[in-house]
Parts: sequence; structure tokens; C-alpha cells
Amino acid sequence: MRHFILSAVLSCAPMIALADPLPSWNATESKDRIIDFVAAVTDPERPEYVTPAERIAVFDNDGTLWAEQPVYFQLFFAMDRLAQLAEADPSILSTPTLQAAAKGDLKTVLEDGHDGLIEVINASHAGVSVDEFQNAVAEWLDTARHSDTDLPYDQMTYQPMVELLRYLRDEGFKTYIVSGGGLHFMRVFAEEAYGIPPEQVLGTYTDTTYDSAEGDPVITKAPSIAFVDDKEGKPINIERTIGRRPILAGGNSDGDFAMLEWTTAGDGPRLGILVHHTDGEREWAYDRESPIGKLVDGLDKGPELGWVIVDMAQDWSRIYTGAN
Amino acid sequence: MRHFILSAVLSCAPMIALADPLPSWNATESKDRIIDFVAAVTDPERPEYVTPAERIAVFDNDGTLWAEQPVYFQLFFAMDRLAQLAEADPSILSTPTLQAAAKGDLKTVLEDGHDGLIEVINASHAGVSVDEFQNAVAEWLDTARHSDTDLPYDQMTYQPMVELLRYLRDEGFKTYIVSGGGLHFMRVFAEEAYGIPPEQVLGTYTDTTYDSAEGDPVITKAPSIAFVDDKEGKPINIERTIGRRPILAGGNSDGDFAMLEWTTAGDGPRLGILVHHTDGEREWAYDRESPIGKLVDGLDKGPELGWVIVDMAQDWSRIYTGAN
Repeated sequence: MRHFILSAVLSCAPMIALADPLPSWNATESKDRIIDFVAAVTDPERPEYVTPAERIAVFDNDGTLWAEQPVYFQLFFAMDRLAQLAEADPSILSTPTLQAAAKGDLKTVLEDGHDGLIEVINASHAGVSVDEFQNAVAEWLDTARHSDTDLPYDQMTYQPMVELLRYLRDEGFKTYIVSGGGLHFMRVFAEEAYGIPPEQVLGTYTDTTYDSAEGDPVITKAPSIAFVDDKEGKPINIERTIGRRPILAGGNSDGDFAMLEWTTAGDGPRLGILVHHTDGEREWAYDRESPIGKLVDGLDKGPELGWVIVDMAQDWSRIYTGAN
Repeated sequence: MRHFILSAVLSCAPMIALADPLPSWNATESKDRIIDFVAAVTDPERPEYVTPAERIAVFDNDGTLWAEQPVYFQLFFAMDRLAQLAEADPSILSTPTLQAAAKGDLKTVLEDGHDGLIEVINASHAGVSVDEFQNAVAEWLDTARHSDTDLPYDQMTYQPMVELLRYLRDEGFKTYIVSGGGLHFMRVFAEEAYGIPPEQVLGTYTDTTYDSAEGDPVITKAPSIAFVDDKEGKPINIERTIGRRPILAGGNSDGDFAMLEWTTAGDGPRLGILVHHTDGEREWAYDRESPIGKLVDGLDKGPELGWVIVDMAQDWSRIYTGAN
């Protein structure tokens, strides 16, 4: 009897080791390199071993954990919310850009480039408490659908990346989002969609004010962006908020270059992962020329820096969490 | 035999429950209220139960977790560092305030009030990488001694509060520092002194820059304060960084009022703790008239808001971690 139990225990060990932690990743070099890296830093017997406290993994969101075409999903929320707010008070549509946004005229909004986008975000994201704002985001996520896929936006997360996040946490990593997207926007779905709690979401944020009239304090969003969590802002925000240099970073655009550079230039084992949007059939194919998610530096310099360049068409057997 | 083992296990349970989690706290109402609160929110059978993820506890540092007289310890570091930097380059002592600071003339520095303090901090904290800065803090902590107690500064932490932090973590809380002190300064000792890791330290911070010349990226402190983590800044920083409203907050001065107010005005069980410096023999006695750690609003309004006002002389059997 004792012998039987012992052999049962022993035979379980290799079975657990063989279970595929990344079932939506094809058996390519990208998958092998990720698994090899995780195996190395989690094995106390190996020189590459990293203590759990230092196993910090940071990921961009738009284009890395969920889709970002034809434009950042947060802009669709902003336009829908602007239209809703204008029903109560049409005077808020005080410029041609805001009028276009409320009509869903994406083309006109984007004609102003980044400025138009910021204008729409500011007009639609301010003057309410953080709680009210996040309730509005949650309602929108429940009802809005992407025009191309007809999926709820929070089901357009990438299944292979959701698996990667879970795998890393199972192996003792702490997973963070570090995104140019709005902090308060992302926190609404990050826990359910990715298993990432509010205190591990870093993003662009507006100023906020604290008011405590009549003993009922409230924190309100102001119409001004206090910090842009993009490019050099990403390592700066990581250092400021986490205070540890990550050992793994994932991104998809040149806005993530500094974050991956800072991560992988550190001592010891490091991994940079760039998601390259190569799949025009199942998703969108874009890189060097795209106004959203432009990727030039990462393609030119990433390979020699040892980064894993994920080829979505080749490396992923499945794209969206919400569709097989 | 089986019966014997069972009774041994059963007899252990009450012994564990009876072990005092706060041995340096006298058996007063303050201690009872803290333990009652923790018991209530951690018992799944009780209506006050709070899930571990929401058990967020935030603490001021200066005057709450360690001493702050005759002035914030960080200013002593700044003055010592300024003197050291001036040995290499005397021209950095470009104002009478900086000259006074380098001589250790605290009185003159404080004559300018807050402005003098900021001037000394800016001149001594900038132009180096975060790594270099933190190495300098670590060296200083190893050698500097407080002139009154002759203790290393990081042994002037309050033993009862160190016990409280540990007790809260043992009960599933996540403990944070939220202090007007410098973020990069506090992170150097917070883990060893309090068991609080870098990502759970919030504080005042300077701007930083990211430079990646020759592929060796470095984050450098700029001579400008980007965010002051005091008064309303505390709840604003907590909301921004943690994204959850704490259920327990500890402070000692009016700079902590908004943090305790925001914490305790929330729904469900909440606890505010104010450390009142009443012990002129073992520590310093100060409150309403003190330029450092001024406490007026907390004494006037705290009791009716249900906050525990800790009377250091009455409630604590021991003060410093570094001295019995």
C-alpha cells in the first residue's frame, strides 16, 4: 500500500510538469523562449534564480493585452459618453471636434491627431467622482460592441496573453499593467479580464481633487492630464510606483520601447516581449506605418536586444478570449 | 494515542488565540479597540467581515512609525549630505540657508519655515540617479546617530507600531506607508524596519528623468518636487496608486487628517488611529503648538469621528525598537 501511494505521487510530478501552461500558443520559438525563461528564474538550483519578490512583470494594455484598432477602445467609450452627456447638456459640445465625436465621426476626431483625442478624453472624463466615472465605464462595457467583431470590448482581450499572465502568477510573478490608457478606465475591467487588481494597474491619469464638504469626502476627476504613462513615462512610473526594476516586460508599440529597454538592460536574466500584429485575417496587420500602435524601433532594435518578437499569425492558435 | 494527539491539537488552539499580538501595548482601551476591530473584520461569520483583498491599512511615517523631533530625520540626512557634497564643490552652497544647513545650523534653516526645508532638500536630493541616492541614504543610516538618543535613526521606529504592522499582516492586511517623507528616502529602510516592500511605500517625490544613452538607461532625480504627499495629497495618492479605499489608517498630525477622514468615512467597519505624543520623558510631548507634527484638528474632531487617540505615555510600555 505504501509503495503504491509513493509511486502514485511520483508519477504525478511529471504529469504536472507536462501540462501546457500556454495552450493557445503554438509550439514555436516564442513559446519555448518564454517557458525557458520562467523555468530558469524560478529554479532555486540555477544561477538565474530570482526571488519571488523580484519577479515583477509589466505589460502594456492596448495592442498587447487587448486589441486597439481602429483606435484605442477608450476613445469609443469617450465618444459614446460625450453623446450621452450632450443629451442632458448640448452646450458641452463646444468645438467641431467634440461635435464630431458625439456623432461617432471618428475620422474628423482623428484629423486633429493626438490633440483631438485628448480634447475628447478631457471633455468626457472630468467633473465626476472617480466612483461615478467607473460606474459609467462598467455600464458601457456591459452594452457596447466593437463594430468589426460584434464582441464586447472586454472580450477582445488576447487569450494567449491572458494565459501568459496566469502562468506568470502561478510561477510566483507579480503582474502589472503599465499602459498609456487611462488608469481609472482600465481598473474597471483589469481584475476580471486579466486577474490584475487595482493596485497593480499603472496608467495615464488626470488630476483629481479631494473635497470633504459635510464629512462625506469625495475624489473627483479634473479636466487635466497629470501624467502620461507612455514612452519614457513608463519606466519613470514603474520606478516611482513599484520601486523595483521588472525582469519581464511586454509591449507592442514604440510607446513601450523605453519600458522594455529599461527592463532588459538590467543585470541578470531579463525578458522583453513584443507582440507584432501580423495577422490581418484574424485581427489587424500593422506596424511601421500605423497611426495607432506604431512599431519601428522595436522591430529594428528589439531582436538584437534579445527581445522575443511574437508573430501573432504564427505563434497564436487563438486570438480573442471571447471567440474561438 | 489518537485521542492524545487530538487533545494536544485542541489545547493548542486557545493558546494561539491567547498569545498577545501587541506585547508593547499596555492593556488599555486603545489596544482593546484595535484588537476588536481586527477580530471583527477577519471573522467570516461576522457581518463586519472584509475580504483580504480589501484589508488595506495605511500609515504615515514621521511621528507615526518613527520619531520626528526635533525635525524630520530626512532633513538631518539632507544637511549631512549637503556638507559632504560641498566638500567636493563648495559653490553648491549658493544661499545663506544652504550654508547654514551644511554647518548643521538647524535653527537658521528653520527660520525660513517650509521654504528653507525645501531648499535644502532640493539641493541635496537631485542630480544623481535613484540608485546612487539610495546608496547615500543607506550609508548615512549606517553611520549617523540622533543627537538626543544616540540611536541610529532607523532604530527610533516605534516598537508598538512595528508590532501593529506585523499583527495586521498576520491577519491578512496589506500594510502601506503614505507619508509626506521622501519616497526614495523611505524605501531604503521601510522593508527592514517595518516589513513594508518598495511597492507599498507612497511618499513625496521629485520629478525624475529617464536617459538611455549608450544602452545603459538610468533614472535620475531632478531638483523639483512633483508631488507632495501630505494633507489632501494623501487620499489623492492612495486613490491613484492603490485604487482601493483603506479600512484602517494611522497618523499623528493634521497632515494625516484627510487620510483618516477619507478612510473612516467609508461604508462598513473602519478604524482611524492617531498617535498622540504625550510622553515628554521617554520621547517628546507635543501637539497643538508644535511646528513639526502639529495636531489640532485630529484632537478636536478625531474622538467624535470614532478615531482611537493613542496616548503614548499611557498606552505604550516601550517606545523605540532600538531601546528597551
